[in-house]
Amino acid sequence: MEYNYSDKMKSLKPSAIREIFKSLTDPSIISFAAGNPSPLSFPADELAEISADIFKNDSTTALQYSITEGYPPFRAAIAERLKKKFGIGRDFDTTIVTSGGQQGIELACKALCNEGDAVICCNPSFIGALNSFRSNGANTIGVDLDDDGINVEKLEKAIQDNPNAKMLYLIPTFQNPTGITMSVEKRKAVYEIVKKYSIPMIEDNPYGELRFAGTDVPTIKSMDTEGLVIYCSSFSKILSAGMRIGYICAPDAIVQKMVVAKQSEDVHTNIFFQMLCYRYMTERDMDSHIADIRKLYGAKCALMLEGLEKNLPSELKFTRPEGGLFIWVTLPDEIDMMTYVRKLIEKKLAVVPGTAFNCDPDAPSHSVRINYSMPSDEQITRGTEIMGEVAREMLSENK
Amino acid sequence: MEYNYSDKMKSLKPSAIREIFKSLTDPSIISFAAGNPSPLSFPADELAEISADIFKNDSTTALQYSITEGYPPFRAAIAERLKKKFGIGRDFDTTIVTSGGQQGIELACKALCNEGDAVICCNPSFIGALNSFRSNGANTIGVDLDDDGINVEKLEKAIQDNPNAKMLYLIPTFQNPTGITMSVEKRKAVYEIVKKYSIPMIEDNPYGELRFAGTDVPTIKSMDTEGLVIYCSSFSKILSAGMRIGYICAPDAIVQKMVVAKQSEDVHTNIFFQMLCYRYMTERDMDSHIADIRKLYGAKCALMLEGLEKNLPSELKFTRPEGGLFIWVTLPDEIDMMTYVRKLIEKKLAVVPGTAFNCDPDAPSHSVRINYSMPSDEQITRGTEIMGEVAREMLSENK
Repeated sequence: MEYNYSDKMKSLKPSAIREIFKSLTDPSIISFAAGNPSPLSFPADELAEISADIFKNDSTTALQYSITEGYPPFRAAIAERLKKKFGIGRDFDTTIVTSGGQQGIELACKALCNEGDAVICCNPSFIGALNSFRSNGANTIGVDLDDDGINVEKLEKAIQDNPNAKMLYLIPTFQNPTGITMSVEKRKAVYEIVKKYSIPMIEDNPYGELRFAGTDVPTIKSMDTEGLVIYCSSFSKILSAGMRIGYICAPDAIVQKMVVAKQSEDVHTNIFFQMLCYRYMTERDMDSHIADIRKLYGAKCALMLEGLEKNLPSELKFTRPEGGLFIWVTLPDEIDMMTYVRKLIEKKLAVVPGTAFNCDPDAPSHSVRINYSMPSDEQITRGTEIMGEVAREMLSENK
Repeated sequence: MEYNYSDKMKSLKPSAIREIFKSLTDPSIISFAAGNPSPLSFPADELAEISADIFKNDSTTALQYSITEGYPPFRAAIAERLKKKFGIGRDFDTTIVTSGGQQGIELACKALCNEGDAVICCNPSFIGALNSFRSNGANTIGVDLDDDGINVEKLEKAIQDNPNAKMLYLIPTFQNPTGITMSVEKRKAVYEIVKKYSIPMIEDNPYGELRFAGTDVPTIKSMDTEGLVIYCSSFSKILSAGMRIGYICAPDAIVQKMVVAKQSEDVHTNIFFQMLCYRYMTERDMDSHIADIRKLYGAKCALMLEGLEKNLPSELKFTRPEGGLFIWVTLPDEIDMMTYVRKLIEKKLAVVPGTAFNCDPDAPSHSVRINYSMPSDEQITRGTEIMGEVAREMLSENK
């Protein structure tokens, strides 16, 4: 039987990261390829206590259909925290719960883009977001990333060159895949551009709470006087990724369209876990839990940077993130990226090829993404040794 | 700020049922408007026990990212049950987990339909499915429903008249909103038609296990020798609606496209509840639990039918479901449907206007949907009395 798929799905391939994730069943492989939070970041015992209490005292609400926007006290608690911690939320904004941060990104695209429209993204960018734009039939237009965030001149030119651009997508803080944080000056400049062209933007901020070095930079959403920013985040990196609980804070008019789209996708997000998150947020010390995660990741990132410094030949460059989960390693021209990745796998180390994050899936990449939240300290040390060994071997072969 | 929404979202209104659901906060209103399962159908104590054990022994897996297709042992258990109970599943089929039955329907549309394509549905039809087709930019083409299921001649004509029809959507068993079950002869005829025209179909079967009268009718999927049927169902009506756990069994080639689309929507379904469902299915007596729900709904449906017979003037007609959650009441021409619904609300009874289920949202309706799973026995008796009082009043006014 030959099936006739929709145009938007015909070209879309399963995410390379997910494919790697599925193949990582070999326990002898050290994985720097994950995007997972450390299991140490899940407060399982506390969640178990609250869960038992919900089953005992509130099971009817927790197991029954609920409203699409999310559990009202939970929405209010998120909105309050956003206001207090990030200066986010004005009179025109509404906060709703989504099934992970991923759904917020996808719903924004569905609400704003027709098939054939363009979404401008910084290049490289989070593959899950790129695929959600593609799965809605939108084209992803990449704009180069500088050391302090997206190149603002090129961004403005991309908007001018693409009159069908309906949305901008950015991860200003601890970007995935590079770990780069956009400077406050650039944030202001980006906001002036979206204002000038009246083009809504997604500010995706899943890692914003995971700063372990440097000083806080205000979110672009906190500068959003005009109602142009759709702020997406989640509890995946601070409570549990598997529960799939995210949220958006965005102008109410856009949120209403996203609610209708969400109703048609999954009716609402698992209500039991919404209640569980709500009670954890309000009854336990979430800030102290987050402080522990930051400390953990800060130590792991420092260990990985130390390993990279010690082991990598100076021809390889890498970013120095102040938070989040990822480091971006860029190879010299003499080292072919895909050959490097394959040789690492032969030596039992998995990393993610940079091509996975390209806005243009056929463009080349000289970089790989590595992660420090999942591997053990021993694995971090050994993995960076392997990266160095293979790089030196390839460099000497090409001399 | 004026926003420029996508064409597909511009016209889409929030579901009338959800709006009613939200407004049903007045506790003095008797609601026949819900589509909710009875809270008595949630085995909360058993789920609590298993949940405690998962937190204790398997929390890392249950709280971490997982694979898009679903928890492998759970998928295997669902596939086995489908085979045993419904004769569903061939070599070319794959079973995956979705975020409620709703997501299976939406993903099928995303995989198969471009904006502007048509989906043929029986009319009236489940509003959530209609809206998920519309939110993907597809048009919903209605085909009349007879007492024994969709009109087969009109179905064939609709396919011939709509060359851009990419999919057929049916709820053959205990249809929402009418409660009608398609005869086995019609199922065979429908399958011959989709085979003749090579048009894939969704068989949506969320109520299939809730038979309390009559005899089982084979699913269309069980007749699917060619790989044309996407079978969607869920645990919402037998374990918990709020957890959002559904599944599809469909030809693997189509499923692969749906997996890519799902990855972009929510990455995967809440993994904790997948594990919880799996263990409930395999460690507890789910069949005996389902038998209890059937008994409960059988008694409630019988009470409602008794009340309708006793109280409604003979000019009003109603269906006699053998399972599921709904009865469909059709008014004579002398009674304007929306006026009837408004007068019922004044007397503190909520029902769903039939227009909500129309494939053409501007078409009229002479029917209302009522539900017997949620109201108490007293409410069922009193509600049917109100329905009778208002109908008699309106009939005498129009004489």
